[in-house]
Amino acid sequence: MPPIDPVDLTAHLVKCPSVTPADAGALDVLHELLSDAGFDCAWADRGGIRNLFARWGKVGNTRSFGFNGHTDVVPVGDEAAWTHPPFGAEIVDGIMYGRGTTDMKSGVAAFAAAAVDFVRDTPPDGSIIITITGDEEGESVDGTTALLEYMEHNGERMDVCLVGEPTCPNRMGDMIKIGRRGSMTTKFRVIGTQGHSAYPHRANNPLPAMVRLMDRLASHKLDEGTDHFDPSTLAVVTVDTGNPASNVIPAECAATVNIRFNDTHSGASLTEWIAGEVAAVKEAFGVEIETHTKISGESFITPPGDLSALVANAVEAVTGVAPELSTTGGTSDARFVKSHCPVVEFGLVGQSMHQVDEHVAVAHIEELKAIYTRILTDYFA
Amino acid sequence: MPPIDPVDLTAHLVKCPSVTPADAGALDVLHELLSDAGFDCAWADRGGIRNLFARWGKVGNTRSFGFNGHTDVVPVGDEAAWTHPPFGAEIVDGIMYGRGTTDMKSGVAAFAAAAVDFVRDTPPDGSIIITITGDEEGESVDGTTALLEYMEHNGERMDVCLVGEPTCPNRMGDMIKIGRRGSMTTKFRVIGTQGHSAYPHRANNPLPAMVRLMDRLASHKLDEGTDHFDPSTLAVVTVDTGNPASNVIPAECAATVNIRFNDTHSGASLTEWIAGEVAAVKEAFGVEIETHTKISGESFITPPGDLSALVANAVEAVTGVAPELSTTGGTSDARFVKSHCPVVEFGLVGQSMHQVDEHVAVAHIEELKAIYTRILTDYFA
Ligand SMILES: [Zn+2]
Ligand SMILES: [Zn+2]
Repeated sequence: MPPIDPVDLTAHLVKCPSVTPADAGALDVLHELLSDAGFDCAWADRGGIRNLFARWGKVGNTRSFGFNGHTDVVPVGDEAAWTHPPFGAEIVDGIMYGRGTTDMKSGVAAFAAAAVDFVRDTPPDGSIIITITGDEEGESVDGTTALLEYMEHNGERMDVCLVGEPTCPNRMGDMIKIGRRGSMTTKFRVIGTQGHSAYPHRANNPLPAMVRLMDRLASHKLDEGTDHFDPSTLAVVTVDTGNPASNVIPAECAATVNIRFNDTHSGASLTEWIAGEVAAVKEAFGVEIETHTKISGESFITPPGDLSALVANAVEAVTGVAPELSTTGGTSDARFVKSHCPVVEFGLVGQSMHQVDEHVAVAHIEELKAIYTRILTDYFA
Repeated sequence: MPPIDPVDLTAHLVKCPSVTPADAGALDVLHELLSDAGFDCAWADRGGIRNLFARWGKVGNTRSFGFNGHTDVVPVGDEAAWTHPPFGAEIVDGIMYGRGTTDMKSGVAAFAAAAVDFVRDTPPDGSIIITITGDEEGESVDGTTALLEYMEHNGERMDVCLVGEPTCPNRMGDMIKIGRRGSMTTKFRVIGTQGHSAYPHRANNPLPAMVRLMDRLASHKLDEGTDHFDPSTLAVVTVDTGNPASNVIPAECAATVNIRFNDTHSGASLTEWIAGEVAAVKEAFGVEIETHTKISGESFITPPGDLSALVANAVEAVTGVAPELSTTGGTSDARFVKSHCPVVEFGLVGQSMHQVDEHVAVAHIEELKAIYTRILTDYFA
C-alpha cells in the first residue's frame, strides 16, 4: 500500500465547507481513513458538533502519543475578494488556496497521514490517539472538552499530546508553543450624577474617576515576564460616554480592559487587584463603579522537557531550523488538553490564517507530515 | 393717562408664539407702545431676525440709560406635559403660565412699562435706550450684536445698561449678575495604531494617552477663584472610542472638555495650557493628538461700583432683600453689551425658565416694574 498523500487529503478536507458548526463531511473523510487503517473510531458529538476520537493500539496501560486538531474553519468573509474559490483547494505554482488550508486542515491531514503510514509500516509498542473536533473556531464548548470527557469516561489516556495548529510566525519550523498566557476581560461602569457643566459642583462627573482608574490600570507594570513568558499586558480597549452636549456633565461612562497574563498571575489575583484599584478610585471620587469580569482562560505551560525536546529535535532534523519555545499568541485547544497531559503545539506558518486567499505551500504539508512521522518514530524508538 | 400694566403687557407678549427665530408680532406690540410714548423706534433686523431699537430723548451727548432684553423664547418641548396652554398666558391664583413668562417677556414688559411711565411723568434730563432682540435663545449672532452695530453706525450710545434676564436663584431680589465666567470647549482626538490585544507591542493604543491627558486636565486646579469669581472649572464631558471587540486595540479615541473660566484666564491662555499638556502626553506616549478649540465667550465683569450700587439700592428699597453680586451661571447677551458700556443683569427668579409650565407670579412682574422705575428715578436724580 502506498503512503497516504497529505496534500490530497488536505484538498479533500478543504472541499468540505465546514464553517463552524457545520462539519460538511470533513470528519467522515477522516473516520473512513482511520478506520481502514485499523484505528478504533468513535464519535464524541455534543451540542450539534461532530467530534472524532480514534485510537490505534490498546486502551489504557500502554505508552500513548496523542494528536489533536480541528476541521472546522472560520467564515469565508468577503467572498468576492478571494482570487480562488474558498472551498476549491486549487493548487497554483505549488500553493494550495482555500479556507482551512493553513488553519488547520493541512495539519490534521499531515498527522493523520503520518499516523496511518507509521502504524502500518512500523507498528509501535503502544498506542496513538487522534482527537479532532468541529468546534475550535466557535465557542469551543462542545469540542475538545467533549473529546476529553469522552476519553475520561472510557478510560482512554494520552501520555503526551501534540496540537497541530499553525505555530510558526515566519518560516517553517521556527516556533513551538509550549503554553499560553491567560486572558481576561473586565467591563467597567462608573456612575455619577448628571448636571450642567456651568454648575459642576451640583453634578458628580463620572469621567474624572474613569480616566484616573484607567490611567492607574494602564500605567501599572504587571510584571517583568517570567522564564517562559513575556510580560503580562493590559489593554484599555474602549472608553465610551456617548454624550453629545458639551454643556452637560454625563451620568455615567463605560470602559473595557483586556489582560493577557503570564504565570505570575491568575484570573482571581488580577480580579482582586482590579477590585482594590476600583475601591481606591471610588473612595477618592465618590462615584459608583460596577465591574464585570470574564476569565477566558488561565495561563498554562508545559515546561521545556522531554516532550518539547522530542518535537524540537524532529523539527530541526527535517527543516534544519532550531525552533523557539514560545508562549505567545492567542488561544487554542491546548488549554483544554493541558489538564489531561503535557501538551505542545507545532504546525505550519500561520500568516494567512483567517484571511482572504488563505493558502499553504504544498511542500510545507509534505514537510509537516515528515516532521510528525519523525516525532512518532523517535517517541516509540 | 393711566400707568402701563406690565402684567397685561406680559400677557400680550406671551400670546405671540415667538420661538426663535419667529417674532410672531411680539416686537410690533413693543414698537407701537414705545412709539406712542414718544420713543424714536427703528428696526435693526438681520439674518431673518427682528431687532427693535428705541430711544427716548436726544442722540449722543446726554446722560443715557439702557435696557436690553429679548422676546424670543425656547421651544415648548413636550406640549402634552403642560397643564396650561404654553402661549395662553393664563393666570391662576396669581400665577401666569406660559413660555417666556419668566425668560423673559415679563422682564421686557416691566422695563418697557417702567420707561414709558417714567418719561411721561418725570421726563429726564437725558435719554433712555431700549434694545430688544429676537435672537437670544438661538445662535445669538443676529441679535444684540446687530443692535450694537446699528447703534455704532448711528451714533447711539448708552452710558450704562441693565439686561432684564432672570437672575434670582431663590427669591425676588436675591441676586444681581455683574459678569460671567468665560466658556470654551476643546475636542481631542488621539490617534495611535490599531492591533490585536494579544500583541500590544505591535499596536499603539491611543487610550492610555487619552486617559492620562484627561486625568491631567481634570485633576489640575485652575485657580482658587478671584474677588468676584468662583474658581474656574473644567469638565471632561465625554470620552468615546466605539470599539466593540475586546481583542482589538483601537486606532483612535475622542474626548471633549468644557472649561468655565474666570478673569485669571483667557481663552488664549487656556488654549496654550492645553497645548502644553497635549505636547507632554504626545511625547510620553508617541501618539498623534489633534485638538479643536471653540471659545464661546471670554469672562467679563463690571466691577462693583456706581451701576451695581444703583441697582442693588433699588432692589433693596423695593423688596427689602440685599442682593448678592454674582458672576455665576450660563451665558447671556450681557457679554456683547459689555464691549459697549458697563452692564449688569437683574430680573426675576429663574427657576421655571425653559421648563414645562414655565410661570411667573403676577406680583413679581409688578415688583420688577417698581424696581426698574426706582432705578430710572435714582439714575436721573
Ligand atoms: Zn486553528
Ligand atoms: Zn433669557
